[in-house]
Amino acid sequence: MTATTRKPPRLYEAYVFDLDGTVYLGDALLPEAGATIQYLREAGKRTVFLSNNPTCRRADYAAKLTGLGLPTPPEDVLNSSLVMAHFLQERMPGATLFVVGEQPLQDELHQAGFTLSEDPNEIEAVIASFDRTFTYHKLQVAFDAIRAGARFFATNADRYCPVPGGGEPDAAAMIAAIEASTNTRVEVVVGKPSQYMAAAILQLVARPAEACIMIGDRLETDVLMGKNHGMASALTLTGATGQADLEASEIAPDYVLTNLGDLIPG
Amino acid sequence: MTATTRKPPRLYEAYVFDLDGTVYLGDALLPEAGATIQYLREAGKRTVFLSNNPTCRRADYAAKLTGLGLPTPPEDVLNSSLVMAHFLQERMPGATLFVVGEQPLQDELHQAGFTLSEDPNEIEAVIASFDRTFTYHKLQVAFDAIRAGARFFATNADRYCPVPGGGEPDAAAMIAAIEASTNTRVEVVVGKPSQYMAAAILQLVARPAEACIMIGDRLETDVLMGKNHGMASALTLTGATGQADLEASEIAPDYVLTNLGDLIPG
Repeated sequence: MTATTRKPPRLYEAYVFDLDGTVYLGDALLPEAGATIQYLREAGKRTVFLSNNPTCRRADYAAKLTGLGLPTPPEDVLNSSLVMAHFLQERMPGATLFVVGEQPLQDELHQAGFTLSEDPNEIEAVIASFDRTFTYHKLQVAFDAIRAGARFFATNADRYCPVPGGGEPDAAAMIAAIEASTNTRVEVVVGKPSQYMAAAILQLVARPAEACIMIGDRLETDVLMGKNHGMASALTLTGATGQADLEASEIAPDYVLTNLGDLIPG
Repeated sequence: MTATTRKPPRLYEAYVFDLDGTVYLGDALLPEAGATIQYLREAGKRTVFLSNNPTCRRADYAAKLTGLGLPTPPEDVLNSSLVMAHFLQERMPGATLFVVGEQPLQDELHQAGFTLSEDPNEIEAVIASFDRTFTYHKLQVAFDAIRAGARFFATNADRYCPVPGGGEPDAAAMIAAIEASTNTRVEVVVGKPSQYMAAAILQLVARPAEACIMIGDRLETDVLMGKNHGMASALTLTGATGQADLEASEIAPDYVLTNLGDLIPG
């Protein structure tokens, strides 16, 4: 534990955990993560999980946590695909969409009642996302649709997704390509740290914001979302953000954790 | 002719013409373009042609002009591919490159003595360009190479390329996708309005800048390059820029032409 660690002095009613870099790294739980989450659950606290990554299904995350010894139903996982589906259902139910994204996002939106199309004259909204199947053809369809009047939304705005030994260009790349060619800014990004993701969390945990603490390894997404929406915020130093990054940032978390073990007042 | 047209009061020694929207539109010469260029040539003036588009060869442009009744050798055409080749030959001759671009640019760089590679550990510079064969794989290679220390240059920064009935996302999209994912700004864009394109023009026409006039249909590329590098500048209203765009812009051309016919003092 470093001198700059600040542990929460009490327990909260609901714990909202980022996943990669917070609960696990790759295929292994991070130190104290399993014991802490079990402790919180046994103490009657709500534990839910959050990902900006729209390329995996909620059930995949739940199965992974369960396999790591933390039995978790899919309903306790939120990702940006689900939040996008709810966002669109409220604003343009049944609309015709063009998805710059992978199959899981397409499936999520199709199952939520949307029609998927590649015809720029039919498309009512372009949904940009982390898309490892991105091609010039998709860029052209998005370009044509937006120039013909389609709305423009995105699931998340992460620059890259860390993978062992490097990273994969994430949704920021797809958003930027569309923005640069159309000279049109994306209207809404529903993933962390947006109000839409925050509202989805509060609905899921059924507690007021001040009873919740958001824990993650990134200042611009996890911590900022907590701070902007009335939740307590804790940065864990087990992932993307180190002590130097923290000191260089204007985003100040309420708490700074060596690992999730620091969530338990001792 | 509108009240706001400002015609040059005299002839210049060298005329540097943008092509699409200035000399021709699609497959037809614009009004007065053929007669004006013939007049200038007969008056002993140098006429050269310029394109930011790296997806066509200089010989293609020369053949097109020749076919339209303006016999032009390939040497009198400059494009951003050629300027990139010269730029790199001066700074990193024989370097290993990764080209996010189409075959003509790859050919130009290969013929200029560069090695093309997809191995991020070998790549010394990433060259971003207008690429209708862009894929996620190319984005990943560019991302990995730049994170491993490769330089990052671009042929041009146009948002889109006008085509009949619409547009094609241009190099700005490829640049933006790489910039957003790597969090690294492109170091140099060699196309209009850069100093590298301007220097290539002056070398080609073998005249001082003040003896040259740059004529084009875009303020941010054609006119700005003339203004920034000591050439006279003329906007022609036959292409991408209308009277309203001109009035809204901070870039003020020396001259404003209804069409190329206004280049001849009368």
